[in-house]
Amino acid sequence: MTERGQAVTLRQVAAHAGVSRQTVSNVINAPQRVDPVTLAKVRSAIEALGYQPSRTARSLATRQAGLIGYCLAGLPGHSLYMDQFLHALTEAVEETGRHMLLFTAPDGDQGLTTYANLIAQRTVDAFILSDTVDEDPRHEWLAGRGVRFASFGRTWPRQGEQPGPWVDVDGFAACAELVTRLHAAGHRRIAFVGWGKRVMMGAGADRLRGWEAGCRRLGLSGRAVYSDSDSMDGAAHAAAALLDDPEPPTAIVAVSDLLAVGVLSEVRRRGLRPGHDVWVTGFDDSLLATSVEGGLTTVRQPTAEIASTLVRLIDNAGPAETGVLLTGRIVARGSAPLDQLQQR
Amino acid sequence: MTERGQAVTLRQVAAHAGVSRQTVSNVINAPQRVDPVTLAKVRSAIEALGYQPSRTARSLATRQAGLIGYCLAGLPGHSLYMDQFLHALTEAVEETGRHMLLFTAPDGDQGLTTYANLIAQRTVDAFILSDTVDEDPRHEWLAGRGVRFASFGRTWPRQGEQPGPWVDVDGFAACAELVTRLHAAGHRRIAFVGWGKRVMMGAGADRLRGWEAGCRRLGLSGRAVYSDSDSMDGAAHAAAALLDDPEPPTAIVAVSDLLAVGVLSEVRRRGLRPGHDVWVTGFDDSLLATSVEGGLTTVRQPTAEIASTLVRLIDNAGPAETGVLLTGRIVARGSAPLDQLQQR
Repeated sequence: MTERGQAVTLRQVAAHAGVSRQTVSNVINAPQRVDPVTLAKVRSAIEALGYQPSRTARSLATRQAGLIGYCLAGLPGHSLYMDQFLHALTEAVEETGRHMLLFTAPDGDQGLTTYANLIAQRTVDAFILSDTVDEDPRHEWLAGRGVRFASFGRTWPRQGEQPGPWVDVDGFAACAELVTRLHAAGHRRIAFVGWGKRVMMGAGADRLRGWEAGCRRLGLSGRAVYSDSDSMDGAAHAAAALLDDPEPPTAIVAVSDLLAVGVLSEVRRRGLRPGHDVWVTGFDDSLLATSVEGGLTTVRQPTAEIASTLVRLIDNAGPAETGVLLTGRIVARGSAPLDQLQQR
Repeated sequence: MTERGQAVTLRQVAAHAGVSRQTVSNVINAPQRVDPVTLAKVRSAIEALGYQPSRTARSLATRQAGLIGYCLAGLPGHSLYMDQFLHALTEAVEETGRHMLLFTAPDGDQGLTTYANLIAQRTVDAFILSDTVDEDPRHEWLAGRGVRFASFGRTWPRQGEQPGPWVDVDGFAACAELVTRLHAAGHRRIAFVGWGKRVMMGAGADRLRGWEAGCRRLGLSGRAVYSDSDSMDGAAHAAAALLDDPEPPTAIVAVSDLLAVGVLSEVRRRGLRPGHDVWVTGFDDSLLATSVEGGLTTVRQPTAEIASTLVRLIDNAGPAETGVLLTGRIVARGSAPLDQLQQR
């Protein structure tokens, strides 16, 4: 930058080196086209002036915006984990010499125009999708138009394969493992609180099936109830139905940290002690998990690995590599002290 | 977009209209230079082909990237509020026909290079700063180089005025009002838990001074203690010092929701009841505030107004308009039921 804070221009470099602007552009974008003497003269001018090639000049030449687009979700419940994810993703993108462009768009089909415009105006080169929902319209739409993307999350298509590369955390395995460890700690009535059909997301069904499989494997019959909204209040209401049972559960696996906190509030409201009378687990390891009294046992997602894998898949998805499933790690805290040797 | 998902190019429009590419570029960027007949012919070609001007072509002509840069903070405590802010900011930027570019940078002087490169490479036109700290190096550095920016937050310079336009929430007034309302509810010993010198931020000092002024005005003498870290545990530790007093406070004003949750955990650990034995207030109205049992009384920041004001200031800061101070609104919940008519 010059002392006046002005960016050194390509024109100034050309003048300094006594060549045309096209020549300078070639030196930067296609040096193989330039004879060695001119190459040296221009490079020396670039260094002397401290010229940094304008991203826009390079992008016109290479037809690359150097930007990857990411759509911010509007849902408050997700924001607890997604901000950690956003940070990891931004860093992973920057590692490849690009930048993150953040945008907002309506959910579903309405939002597709926004994606279309960003590509048509060559504002971004590719997208990272998240907050995926069942039968998400974006994946097929983008894939059909040859737009590069990678998805954090599966879309659980009813038929065929999910279009485009994806990364996800194995919620099934994590919830099955939670059941196994709760059983090992002595629990025999292990319930599940999930998202109801109105807010149904494939990730929720995946975790539910893991809980189911864990129970079945151990000969347990557990009850599953559903929160009518992605909220603490909805989960508290659902937990009330469980705890009203003549034979209530002694452990409750909740589909997310947010719902787990709602379950905990209902447990406490009845004068029951989390981690003693009723054990409760969540999913995400968000800041909520350390904010509740005693801490919330939950599943931690490998955020950095998710982010770097997504960026890698945008550039280098192998021909047979469409999906990468990563493992979540159980973090035991006060709401379900799984790491203590305890018989009930 | 063509059916193959390829963006229609400027070259295709030129060919379709039978003119040079420069002419098409002029029609888009400088229509006043083009004769009416040609103007009509090219515009009609643009419409027929569905051409959307490449952001990069326009930005070369106008020397505008069309992007505003925002740096993600690495601090987990802030993320609870900042994600709401990020969403509002992205929307406010999009309202002006631009997009948000997200980036990461080290704190302090080390990060300045990142800002410099983004400007030098013309990747962004301006910055929105947040997570401002005392004597923040960025404001003066950017202002000195003529880079446009607006700051969410004050930097509390020891001398002179803060460089560049800023928006902030009046923490002083909010905390003074909290004291006034706690006093009206019957409290006479109202303490403060703030950030210690190691994590001192001007916003914290501003809120502390508001609490101080509120107490002084009502003839109260209150005790202030400091958390040694921006964390719940640090706040719990600080609250312990208050509650160990022979005459402990009956109300505690915490500098943020995160610290308030730490204070609450210490209150409960001693078997005391929040909102009964000890009243506790926070600041931010983050998701934490609704996640604790009974809810946390706190100060809500006018997020949408902050965001739109920041964007406006980047483009249109009036000559005398350097700072905009907005009012926070107290939201009363279970931890300090200020809206109930109650005498202690």
